[in-house]
Amino acid sequence: MENFTFKNDTKIIFGKGTENSAGKEILKYGKKILLHYGGGSIKKSGLYDKVMKSLKESSITVFELGGVKPNPAVSLIRQGIGICRENKIDFILAVGGGSVIDSSKAISMGVNYSGDVWDFFEGKAKLESSLPVGVILTIPAAGSESSVVTVITNEDGLIKRGFHSSMLLPKFAILNPELTFTLPVFQIACGAADILAHTFERYFTQTKNVDLTDRLCEGLMKTVIENSKIAVKDLGNYDAMAELMWASTIAHNGILGTGRVEDWASHKLGHELSALYGITHGASISVMFPAWMKYVYKYNIDRFAQFAARVFNIDYGFGDEQWLALRGITELENYFKELGLPTTLTELKVPFDKLELMAEKAVVKGPIGNFVKINKEDAFKIYELAK
Amino acid sequence: MENFTFKNDTKIIFGKGTENSAGKEILKYGKKILLHYGGGSIKKSGLYDKVMKSLKESSITVFELGGVKPNPAVSLIRQGIGICRENKIDFILAVGGGSVIDSSKAISMGVNYSGDVWDFFEGKAKLESSLPVGVILTIPAAGSESSVVTVITNEDGLIKRGFHSSMLLPKFAILNPELTFTLPVFQIACGAADILAHTFERYFTQTKNVDLTDRLCEGLMKTVIENSKIAVKDLGNYDAMAELMWASTIAHNGILGTGRVEDWASHKLGHELSALYGITHGASISVMFPAWMKYVYKYNIDRFAQFAARVFNIDYGFGDEQWLALRGITELENYFKELGLPTTLTELKVPFDKLELMAEKAVVKGPIGNFVKINKEDAFKIYELAK
Repeated sequence: MENFTFKNDTKIIFGKGTENSAGKEILKYGKKILLHYGGGSIKKSGLYDKVMKSLKESSITVFELGGVKPNPAVSLIRQGIGICRENKIDFILAVGGGSVIDSSKAISMGVNYSGDVWDFFEGKAKLESSLPVGVILTIPAAGSESSVVTVITNEDGLIKRGFHSSMLLPKFAILNPELTFTLPVFQIACGAADILAHTFERYFTQTKNVDLTDRLCEGLMKTVIENSKIAVKDLGNYDAMAELMWASTIAHNGILGTGRVEDWASHKLGHELSALYGITHGASISVMFPAWMKYVYKYNIDRFAQFAARVFNIDYGFGDEQWLALRGITELENYFKELGLPTTLTELKVPFDKLELMAEKAVVKGPIGNFVKINKEDAFKIYELAK
Repeated sequence: MENFTFKNDTKIIFGKGTENSAGKEILKYGKKILLHYGGGSIKKSGLYDKVMKSLKESSITVFELGGVKPNPAVSLIRQGIGICRENKIDFILAVGGGSVIDSSKAISMGVNYSGDVWDFFEGKAKLESSLPVGVILTIPAAGSESSVVTVITNEDGLIKRGFHSSMLLPKFAILNPELTFTLPVFQIACGAADILAHTFERYFTQTKNVDLTDRLCEGLMKTVIENSKIAVKDLGNYDAMAELMWASTIAHNGILGTGRVEDWASHKLGHELSALYGITHGASISVMFPAWMKYVYKYNIDRFAQFAARVFNIDYGFGDEQWLALRGITELENYFKELGLPTTLTELKVPFDKLELMAEKAVVKGPIGNFVKINKEDAFKIYELAK
């Protein structure tokens, strides 16, 4: 186990009806807020009205900015920063999924910064202050509701970049599984893939002696696999969505990565698909993770064999370790297929003529990943494996 | 899953050499501290000198109070409160295990309260402020380093009582597994039992649909069982002690209990053994938990069968559910025995003439536990089963 520090002080407010406490929670931080959301599904579902009622009861002044799209765009973020500055806003309430939360975090970073917010994502600026952010979650997936990360897209150049800071931890996250009942099946499936991906990035490590976090990762993966299969077949199943929702948060709140060197190559490979072709993050994951696994498993067969044995219950005694390791990857692909997720670039209708360009962009800041260092040539081969 | 709120903002500082950062961490909260510790083992081990050096480097003024014993006594706590008041102390640093931390928390409660600190434990006072507490942990066991609880003993009447408040969460917990290398085998074993007990109190619930926290509990239990067996045979094994140390914190930081109704009857039954006969907490656990399990398993055989199958890998297909449930309890007893822990009152040399008195004291505030409500008669029968 490696030395580490861990602190996560997001307050989790979980369960039925919890969205009604938004106003009361916000009052601890501010009275004038930006309500940030996506394409308007929260208006159709009635969530918007409930939230506005809670805010009104707490006499909170509300400015609004909707329109966040998947792979949130820096242009809308700049607009949000403008609204916050003009109106001296002191709190941002994100109502939505990972894109809305990430957009809110990026807005919170830019308000007190004199330059352009993209500077942070280019490594040209250091974050010194940010507005507090709170979350009402509607999609169990990204884990951004209790993470230190935001990932946004600069449409000018189709670049997707992340930024980390403990200042980006949301003050509270309201998680009511009922708010997910209107999600389309595909989005539930993508969410499950995303939760698993956050766990994989921590699980597949070369760090030795990490028994506890291994077991916690495995337990979370099993829970997500079992419950996502139920959730996509039985829409509106509270119990299954509750498991996915709490798992989405725990998968990315930092605890599963304690004492381990994390990887994150697959995410970067997937980000290129999203940046170039607008592929939903979860679908980029279900394609890129199995391909990455096939490319790297030989660098630590034990770990992949453990994954197969413990997560997919494949008897460790059957066949050799290599067989077992590969069997686990196949089981993962089968699981993604059962959920209706793509596992190849062909299914995503991604043309093969830009694989080299994507490989080049993925490693533009140097080799990616830690399980195995992935350079441009490796990245290209992984994209080839994903065809 | 039940509705819940969860927040835990203790900063975990884990790994080799981390005790040297104590001074720097404390400076965020105060400059004049009470250094609170136990019987002086920290002086023999050299930890005391290292800590004093770190405090000196940060120009922190130190007042000292050693002498905390297992099942920390309210008399010493009153003395600590006096020292804090007289010297206008603004921070308490606990260096030790659960008893030292609990004693520190109790001192922190009493400093700004005009009455006697025991009032809080009698339900006669509400906690309105407390001094900040930091921890350097030397025994992986109690989980008090990141919990909202303190349990202390009033020698006048031999009463052991707990108090909960989010104000009692330590500001930081320094966890260096090397600091456990001088622990006697019996204390490592007691610690493992204590960690498991905190998990059992959450795991054995009647709440349905708690898959994720079930899996997390099971993963933690397996880790503790495997690594404690190594730790008691190979003293000074960093990796094994690191797993136990991080497990001790996670088992009791609240996350494993999210969305579940917890039990805590076994702890209260064990507390009577400690209060009357000074039995080490971990040893009271290894005796009382199996007895409690034998008494209550019939109220939810599924849950005990799941415990046997998932934690002890007993094939679910063998025999009937009742057999499986009982087999899991036997495996737990075997494990405690392998660790050198007692599993009967006879081994603890507890006379049988006061079982009725203990049963009466255990339920003095009303029935205990939630898995099954335990009244005086039940408590007596459980003590009988523990003979």
